[in-house]
Amino acid sequence: MADNNVEKTSVALLGLGAMGAALARAWLAAGHPVTVWNRTPARAAALAAEGARVADSAAEAVAAHTLVVACLLDDASVDEVLTGADLAGRDLVNLTTSTPAQARARAEWARERGAHYLDGGIMAVPPMIGVPEAGGYVFYSGSRELFERHRETLAVPAGTTYVGTDAGFAALHDVALLSAMYGMFAGVTHAFALIRREDIDPASLAPLLADWLVAMAPGIHQTADQLRHGDYTKGVVSRLAMQVAGTPTFLSTAQQQGVSPELLSPYFALMRRRLAEAGGEEGLTGLVDLLVH
Amino acid sequence: MADNNVEKTSVALLGLGAMGAALARAWLAAGHPVTVWNRTPARAAALAAEGARVADSAAEAVAAHTLVVACLLDDASVDEVLTGADLAGRDLVNLTTSTPAQARARAEWARERGAHYLDGGIMAVPPMIGVPEAGGYVFYSGSRELFERHRETLAVPAGTTYVGTDAGFAALHDVALLSAMYGMFAGVTHAFALIRREDIDPASLAPLLADWLVAMAPGIHQTADQLRHGDYTKGVVSRLAMQVAGTPTFLSTAQQQGVSPELLSPYFALMRRRLAEAGGEEGLTGLVDLLVH
Ligand SMILES: NC(=O)c1ccc[n+]([C@@H]2O[C@H](COP(=O)([O-])OP(=O)(O)OC[C@H]3O[C@@H](n4cnc5c(N)ncnc54)[C@H](OP(=O)(O)O)[C@@H]3O)[C@@H](O)[C@H]2O)c1
Ligand SMILES: NC(=O)c1ccc[n+]([C@@H]2O[C@H](COP(=O)([O-])OP(=O)(O)OC[C@H]3O[C@@H](n4cnc5c(N)ncnc54)[C@H](OP(=O)(O)O)[C@@H]3O)[C@@H](O)[C@H]2O)c1
Repeated sequence: MADNNVEKTSVALLGLGAMGAALARAWLAAGHPVTVWNRTPARAAALAAEGARVADSAAEAVAAHTLVVACLLDDASVDEVLTGADLAGRDLVNLTTSTPAQARARAEWARERGAHYLDGGIMAVPPMIGVPEAGGYVFYSGSRELFERHRETLAVPAGTTYVGTDAGFAALHDVALLSAMYGMFAGVTHAFALIRREDIDPASLAPLLADWLVAMAPGIHQTADQLRHGDYTKGVVSRLAMQVAGTPTFLSTAQQQGVSPELLSPYFALMRRRLAEAGGEEGLTGLVDLLVH
Repeated sequence: MADNNVEKTSVALLGLGAMGAALARAWLAAGHPVTVWNRTPARAAALAAEGARVADSAAEAVAAHTLVVACLLDDASVDEVLTGADLAGRDLVNLTTSTPAQARARAEWARERGAHYLDGGIMAVPPMIGVPEAGGYVFYSGSRELFERHRETLAVPAGTTYVGTDAGFAALHDVALLSAMYGMFAGVTHAFALIRREDIDPASLAPLLADWLVAMAPGIHQTADQLRHGDYTKGVVSRLAMQVAGTPTFLSTAQQQGVSPELLSPYFALMRRRLAEAGGEEGLTGLVDLLVH
């Protein structure tokens, strides 16, 4: 809701793809003046009808306001779009997905141009933007001053989680969470494949799967605790030796159901390697170290 | 709590490993007469002190009561232990982890010997047995009559979920849920590996990871719905094409952090295969079919 008694921070927004357009609408709805620019002008025109000012170039949008938000396809497009813009004194918030190294290089690049830099990793899909109860949020890292200065404005489209002055940390947290999610999806894919040819309704398996994964997720805290203290046997209930002994049941079941084990076998192979190297008294935490060269 | 006004069903229990002993204690605590047998007698002696009757042989335990529960290491040990016992008229509940094919064969084997057969897959670790609030339960499949007859007794150590007359379905559900869990653990392993060399406390990543996975788990219902109806584009928010375009960020980040991509790359490879075969408008559901030959 617009509150006309308080002056809202103006936002220059570069990029009106699915995500950029959702961000623009969230700020406009909250009463923030927004100047938009998009490579394909038609997308900007749609937002003009909703109250946005449209700039003719990225440089013009950057010149209009101190707070500049970029939400473009990738790091290369950020480079392309901001070349030629005068960033001196600007607060640049880059919500374009990138790797930690790209974010760190972009922070240095911004510093050389006299801009403050905050990197962001968006943990939401566009329909969750501007809908606080959807629980989406953005990881931020880089300039803490910039983050504090614009905290309220940044909190309009989604929650904010600041994870450190290292500009690469937002991307690192983003990638870490999504990587874990893809692992979970891989496991779920295997599970549905196992029942694919049986007379079992996928919709009856779904709640059992979801409840089980939710019940097992808190095990993550024990893993973190063990990594932190270096004792990988502390509090172990299911010993690695027992778990490795159980893997033939998983592989045989996959074979019986005509399911390729390709999504699970790398994890089982890692379990066997750890068992050979560290013995059977640990749980699964030691596998983390095997992945890191 | 024992209720001495109601006669509780007697249980013959074969196998007093970590799980069998926990089952025995739960039934004893609830006032059920329990006759135990274990290959290594010392383990049975411990339970005698807690009120169990100890049989000298598996055959003797089987002869003592109608309800016979086996919780042994594996299917081969079930064979070994029950050879020589007279199973005619017995209600055999086999809680030994097995594959669906082993469970089906064991059901047929029991039928030939005149026994009713119920197979079980335990979704709990021993500390959760006899602790209803811990949320553990057992998948049961096979004889519905046997299940109904002993429903209350079976509900003493853990919750009960009956999944069908096909004796293999309990094992199939068990393996499906645990497979999905290992996928989630693999993703979490990768996530912790990504921050292993950074100045980031694993205990600060843990709640972010756990919350994110819990928030993403309900996506399982959409997958089930799409599998059921065959339309894999229905309700898709994150298109496969967009997700495949994002995979280089995950792989580059892993490389930058010195982390082997071995746990994630098979899933990404499957995403690329599906994109090539079915186009980019689907989400991730189509990957299920690629796993099934
Ligand atoms: N959508 C999601 O679910 C989601 C979730 C989390 C994070 N993100 C991240 O948010 C960012 C934007 O995603 P999106 O969903 O909005 O993508 P999108 O719908 O594909 O939009 C891409 C945007 O980038 C612009 N662009 C691409 N290449 C360009 C170039 N060379 N020069 C100038 N502009 C260029 C496009 O302009 P045109 O209109 O001219 O093509 C468009 O505005 C990405 O980094 C994405 O990873 C998205
Ligand atoms: N523990 C868990 O977290 C868990 C969770 C879910 C399901 N389960 C399943 O529950 C079953 C039992 O597991 P557990 O944890 O109790 O295992 P355990 O502690 O290793 O005990 C194994 C039991 O099997 C007996 N046994 C093994 N080979 C035998 C043979 N050839 N002849 C006779 N007895 C034999 C052992 O007798 P001895 O004492 O003589 O060695 C012992 O009673 C397994 O199928 C397991 O997969 C366990």
